[in-house]
Amino acid sequence: MKVEVKVDIKKLINEKEFKLLKELLKEQEPARIVEMIEELPQDEKIVVFRFLPKDTAAEVFSHLEKDDQMELLSLFKEDKLKEIIENMEPDDRADLLEELPANVVKRLLAHLSNEERQNTLTLLNYPEYSAGRIMNPNFLDLKENMTVKEALQHIKVEGNKKETIYTLFVIDNTRKLKGTVELKDLIFSEEDEFIKNIMNENPIYSTVYDDEEEVARIMQDYDLLAIPVTDSEKRLVGIITIDDIVDVLEESATEDIQKMAAVGVTETSYFHTSIWALIKSRVIWLGALLLFESIAVFVIEGFSDVLQKITVLAAFMPTINAIGGNTGSQMSAIVIRSMAVGDIEEDDFKKVLSKELFSGIILGIILGIIMFLRSIVNTREPLIMLSLSLSIIIVVMISNLLGAILPFFAKKIHLDPALISGPFISTLMDILSMFFYFSISALLLKDLL
Amino acid sequence: MKVEVKVDIKKLINEKEFKLLKELLKEQEPARIVEMIEELPQDEKIVVFRFLPKDTAAEVFSHLEKDDQMELLSLFKEDKLKEIIENMEPDDRADLLEELPANVVKRLLAHLSNEERQNTLTLLNYPEYSAGRIMNPNFLDLKENMTVKEALQHIKVEGNKKETIYTLFVIDNTRKLKGTVELKDLIFSEEDEFIKNIMNENPIYSTVYDDEEEVARIMQDYDLLAIPVTDSEKRLVGIITIDDIVDVLEESATEDIQKMAAVGVTETSYFHTSIWALIKSRVIWLGALLLFESIAVFVIEGFSDVLQKITVLAAFMPTINAIGGNTGSQMSAIVIRSMAVGDIEEDDFKKVLSKELFSGIILGIILGIIMFLRSIVNTREPLIMLSLSLSIIIVVMISNLLGAILPFFAKKIHLDPALISGPFISTLMDILSMFFYFSISALLLKDLL
Repeated sequence: MKVEVKVDIKKLINEKEFKLLKELLKEQEPARIVEMIEELPQDEKIVVFRFLPKDTAAEVFSHLEKDDQMELLSLFKEDKLKEIIENMEPDDRADLLEELPANVVKRLLAHLSNEERQNTLTLLNYPEYSAGRIMNPNFLDLKENMTVKEALQHIKVEGNKKETIYTLFVIDNTRKLKGTVELKDLIFSEEDEFIKNIMNENPIYSTVYDDEEEVARIMQDYDLLAIPVTDSEKRLVGIITIDDIVDVLEESATEDIQKMAAVGVTETSYFHTSIWALIKSRVIWLGALLLFESIAVFVIEGFSDVLQKITVLAAFMPTINAIGGNTGSQMSAIVIRSMAVGDIEEDDFKKVLSKELFSGIILGIILGIIMFLRSIVNTREPLIMLSLSLSIIIVVMISNLLGAILPFFAKKIHLDPALISGPFISTLMDILSMFFYFSISALLLKDLL
Repeated sequence: MKVEVKVDIKKLINEKEFKLLKELLKEQEPARIVEMIEELPQDEKIVVFRFLPKDTAAEVFSHLEKDDQMELLSLFKEDKLKEIIENMEPDDRADLLEELPANVVKRLLAHLSNEERQNTLTLLNYPEYSAGRIMNPNFLDLKENMTVKEALQHIKVEGNKKETIYTLFVIDNTRKLKGTVELKDLIFSEEDEFIKNIMNENPIYSTVYDDEEEVARIMQDYDLLAIPVTDSEKRLVGIITIDDIVDVLEESATEDIQKMAAVGVTETSYFHTSIWALIKSRVIWLGALLLFESIAVFVIEGFSDVLQKITVLAAFMPTINAIGGNTGSQMSAIVIRSMAVGDIEEDDFKKVLSKELFSGIILGIILGIIMFLRSIVNTREPLIMLSLSLSIIIVVMISNLLGAILPFFAKKIHLDPALISGPFISTLMDILSMFFYFSISALLLKDLL
């Protein structure tokens, strides 16, 4: 893999070799320029932007992280700003504007042509994470009664300004979606064939209010390069291309991982998130879980007489808690991820329940036996060994079950299942584990008390 | 979103309405047939395959889960088997064969034409998860001195059998990669323009031994629909298309989530993984962590005199352990995910270290204060309150630091950072937390002992 930009841009800027810089920049792909520009200080970023062709400048700007975009916006001269905003794709522009304060948005919108402004405002009207928000209204449309030759001619004239020409969208006079046709089907067809004869009359489509992750799942399952997006009357209003979907899938996996580790979701990457934002995203969860854990304190205090008489029980508290937390984390991760990729649906509840009821018993017995054997090292009292094993069996069964079913309940009450995360279920299990551990011990060991 | 197949296939099969079935199947996209077929019992799956067009049959078969594929292989009649195997894409075929026992592979390979057999064996020679393994050797190549007209003619004749025609690959007589050209550039160019004048002479490419996740990252960053794959002498040997990459990205996120929850990686989805395989993937980790936790038992036993005199300390053990586990899980999840998506590189170690050293202190102090205030509910002894707060501060700092740096060490010794997961770091922290908690308490509370 060769992805190299080995020219010292800083040196070029310092030595004012602007002609060479401009030449070099013209040769590079936007993604390479993004990588490069991220390493530069703000004032040198501005210099690089000055020498980028205007389409490239807008594309590079779109790919920067939010914090860099914000800073640059305030540093660009008025005409540069106008050029970049006008040349951005409508979906990227909407994405940027929604983060900005209203007065800045107003100023930026004023820079736009009427058409682009309208496009942007339309997208901004759709809810976050909807198909409408990430679609691009810039697509190429054909009519059913065009011939292949006419269609190709139309593409030659209009295609250059459109997001993609590999999937083409056939609409009628009221802009209703009639079908899609792949460019390759045009290439393989006779010149005088009519579009209506080669188009897919029953294409997969999404509507503006569909969730972006659902759209992503569909495009992945159907190996689509682009999907049409319609309004509620099936009028074609935009398209979503696979490159946007790749980003959606990745962001949604990152979000799930963050939630599963009880981290508040951050929209920016690690180094682009300030220390304070990161701390905030974590401390709320940590603090809440710390207080939630208080219940475990009371449970244990309730058994303080047992503990005082048989102190070896205290030594195994972390073991019992850990096994509950680990089992629950495993199980919830499996269910949450399977839900996210569509392998487990809401109506699979009973199937999951019975599978995991059984798994939990097997897991519990295996781990209970390991515990029984392992506890010989610390105690020779068979009743204590038995209490430990029994506690493990019960705790593993319960945590396995909770890990399996809580994500379903979360979904039922419209919470993200990923919130039933490792840390959350571990804390819940701490309370239950301590209760069962000491109850079982008190019962079995009452002669020792 | 309309993805509906509302015909009762089972009824059609039972009533032997095969003509209608065949007609209906011809209309459906392969992905819809996959969804449908997954719901049917094996013998009805076989019936559906009997009536699928052969290309569709191979594609549908490729998209089924491994366990279904295995079972069907043994149920297909010899000629159906041959037809499906021959018509599968080489990469899908290699993927299937590697799971099968050697004697079955031999039998299946015998069904293939010489060319397809050679293709498949070549792919199987590359290591798992390499670009070579997932590439498709079926690409369309052009020569530099072709004109646009000649190229389009070539595509019309040859393109139908190829994986994609949207990216075209320019090679010389020794099959060395000279450039790539997008179909859209052909469309927008004059007919007599030469390919060498419109091709990208410096295309991004990958080599057969590159890791598939690296290739995925590059294709995502550069918004590529297809990437050329070359051997060590830069001879073009295959291509990878974006639809395969979407699957790679998704599988790698799933793998990371599984590892982060200390679940052994399963290759199949939840309902396609047997109870025993799932239990096995979990019990090894759970058992290992259970034994690892033994160290915490010894640490606590070492402080049994302290514990016996001040039993309220026992009540807070789970709280101290939980905060250590939660903080470590959060931090490791952030670092692991950022590494996976390329936001944190190995040489960012020092930057992460200093950021998290600071974050850890802040987090520790905030949580220490919460603990101090909250402990009033259970104790009025200021020294105990102080021990608790101090322990929290130390434990949070250490676990935050370990969560940040252990993924780097894992990477250094070529382990997957995702293994420094919630459960692993929680167990490690249990040991350290207990040690610091009781050391601090013994020191501060020596007058109470």
